[in-house]
Amino acid sequence: MNALRHTISLVSLGTFQLVRRTKGQHLQGFLFGTGLGLASFSAVTYAHSAEAVNPKVKMDTSRFMAEPITDTKVLLEDKENMRHRMELLIMEIQAEFCRALEAEENCGQKFKVDRWERAEGGGGITCVLQDGDVFEKAGVNISVVTGSLPPAAVQQMRARGKNLKEGAALPFFASGVSAVIHPRNPHVPTIHFNYRYFEVEVAKGEKQWWFGGGTDLTPYYLCEKDACHFHQTLKNACDEHDATYYPRFKKWCDDYFRIKHRNESRGIGGIFFDDIDSPNQEAAFGFVSSCARAVIPSYMPLVRKHKNREYGNNERQWQLLRRGRYVEFNLIYDRGTKFGLYTPGARYESILMSLPLHARWEYMHEPKSKTEEGKLMKVLKNPKDWV
Amino acid sequence: MNALRHTISLVSLGTFQLVRRTKGQHLQGFLFGTGLGLASFSAVTYAHSAEAVNPKVKMDTSRFMAEPITDTKVLLEDKENMRHRMELLIMEIQAEFCRALEAEENCGQKFKVDRWERAEGGGGITCVLQDGDVFEKAGVNISVVTGSLPPAAVQQMRARGKNLKEGAALPFFASGVSAVIHPRNPHVPTIHFNYRYFEVEVAKGEKQWWFGGGTDLTPYYLCEKDACHFHQTLKNACDEHDATYYPRFKKWCDDYFRIKHRNESRGIGGIFFDDIDSPNQEAAFGFVSSCARAVIPSYMPLVRKHKNREYGNNERQWQLLRRGRYVEFNLIYDRGTKFGLYTPGARYESILMSLPLHARWEYMHEPKSKTEEGKLMKVLKNPKDWV
Repeated sequence: MNALRHTISLVSLGTFQLVRRTKGQHLQGFLFGTGLGLASFSAVTYAHSAEAVNPKVKMDTSRFMAEPITDTKVLLEDKENMRHRMELLIMEIQAEFCRALEAEENCGQKFKVDRWERAEGGGGITCVLQDGDVFEKAGVNISVVTGSLPPAAVQQMRARGKNLKEGAALPFFASGVSAVIHPRNPHVPTIHFNYRYFEVEVAKGEKQWWFGGGTDLTPYYLCEKDACHFHQTLKNACDEHDATYYPRFKKWCDDYFRIKHRNESRGIGGIFFDDIDSPNQEAAFGFVSSCARAVIPSYMPLVRKHKNREYGNNERQWQLLRRGRYVEFNLIYDRGTKFGLYTPGARYESILMSLPLHARWEYMHEPKSKTEEGKLMKVLKNPKDWV
Repeated sequence: MNALRHTISLVSLGTFQLVRRTKGQHLQGFLFGTGLGLASFSAVTYAHSAEAVNPKVKMDTSRFMAEPITDTKVLLEDKENMRHRMELLIMEIQAEFCRALEAEENCGQKFKVDRWERAEGGGGITCVLQDGDVFEKAGVNISVVTGSLPPAAVQQMRARGKNLKEGAALPFFASGVSAVIHPRNPHVPTIHFNYRYFEVEVAKGEKQWWFGGGTDLTPYYLCEKDACHFHQTLKNACDEHDATYYPRFKKWCDDYFRIKHRNESRGIGGIFFDDIDSPNQEAAFGFVSSCARAVIPSYMPLVRKHKNREYGNNERQWQLLRRGRYVEFNLIYDRGTKFGLYTPGARYESILMSLPLHARWEYMHEPKSKTEEGKLMKVLKNPKDWV
């Protein structure tokens, strides 16, 4: 078991939201199943001398889906702190994406907003729109949490190349935004994205940090033009920062979202990355911001283009079968989902929000190669380059 | 990772059927992921001097769903061999159960039969009835396979108490029947059962053997009378052999079929056991036979009683939600399913046959405690004694 990968995925699928607990509960098994409680690292963030803030300056939080997890006075006072910049970024990404999705609903369906806090510090905001006329199930999560990496996890990170002290539990901070959108119309693809920031305190006052994330698309019917648009938008966001990013992260994405027992991909990929800590924090944050801001332009045109297209029962049944494959990937392979669910006391509703409203499994279903369904299967079997 | 448990579950969910491969393929990762190929142990069974059989005696296989996996001449010639007795038992159980299910279909829907063989020896018969008017999806599998337990698996079995030689790959034989039945009417419960026989050759000419299995019920609406009937029928089958069996195996079942992240059971349990190798082979086989023969009387009366009951969309949606939970258990916790799917080249269609035709996930769905749905949840949260 690779703890790093678990760490990646924990954040990658909003499983940090799973740490909502009642006061006094122990975080047995949190993150790595080793029964360590969360450290009071959160105090570093949350007890930050708030009284120093200019009382006349107040943050306008009306644009967010809910109040930020961290006290707005603290966010205002220490604007340069990457934790705070990331929190504001993910709050904005969440709100903009939710509003963009709501704007496509023809009957005014809105997101249900659940803001939750952890007694130990931190928390999250889970936004779900269910049974809309355009979106069958859409979930957009943010979470901002702190804790303690158990020695075994530290050991795994060391094995991955991180320069961490052996045998000690290290304080960490993690925040991220993650979303899975399952539209109703089979001609509109499902999208998933996640962007996250991670800090580990390797010694008193000394920390390591990195970013991770990705966006990927799962169409039910292949529209090559859409696939190119989607990938091109992500590539543009990457190229602004490093021309080597897109090809590397496109391949990483293809490798990760593979349903191994079926030897097929979940979708047509996108980008997927982790451990971004260069060339410097500012540039890395800029890169992640660009990727996160590319979600709406990469996806919403596809929604608008196809959401009112006609379809019949055949298309619906095919969509449900592919959603069954989505469930297979998420429950069997996705490390964040699996690991999150193995964590006692997990906020499983936030983790499983990624599952579609409906899914279907048929014995030995295989579309004929000349059909539209067969055309999709061909690129799922053999991922191709789109740009 | 407990290899024993994997072994248990591999057989328990028909994953032995996953070893169908083309000639010359290596069985990398088979059973325990250690990349050992299957040994030629199968030759012991299949190359058994068939010419010694009386050519006038011929087995009537018309009662089975397909021809047995082992040559009928071999089965006839060596009738006392437990491998052969078990194969005939599971063939009969499969056929009788499939016929009993078909008899309930109002429009004459029949099982589709897939008989498959492995190049290395052995194979299986997968029977699926899909989209029937009474059964939405019903799968009944048998498999008869041989192979080689890698040293790591042997090591794990040693840790479990088996007296096996360390550091060597040991030939094994496994056969079993497994079934999952998802009816259409929400008032008819889902049933799952599996009965299996295992042999390991610990030294030249010396082997260890054991039986395992179980039957469990997953109702969507609780009918206490049905639950009592189901458990009483299993208890009677157990009590014929050992009065301590039912209480032990009932608890084992409750412990195993737990959806841990939700802290609820998949259903109302039944029996679940493994490692049955006492008081002697004859008695153990008798016990497993009794359990397998108890499936029809435990279940079919419930089908007949409820299959034509009226229900509305509410009941259907609740059934689909519970089927989502079934999918969660099978893909996240069931060791056989998980492990099977991680095995390269697995016959995933046989493994995933256990999944329902349709499933549903709603964010934060919780039935009110006074409703029929809430009444079921109460016993899923806190398993109770039914007899």
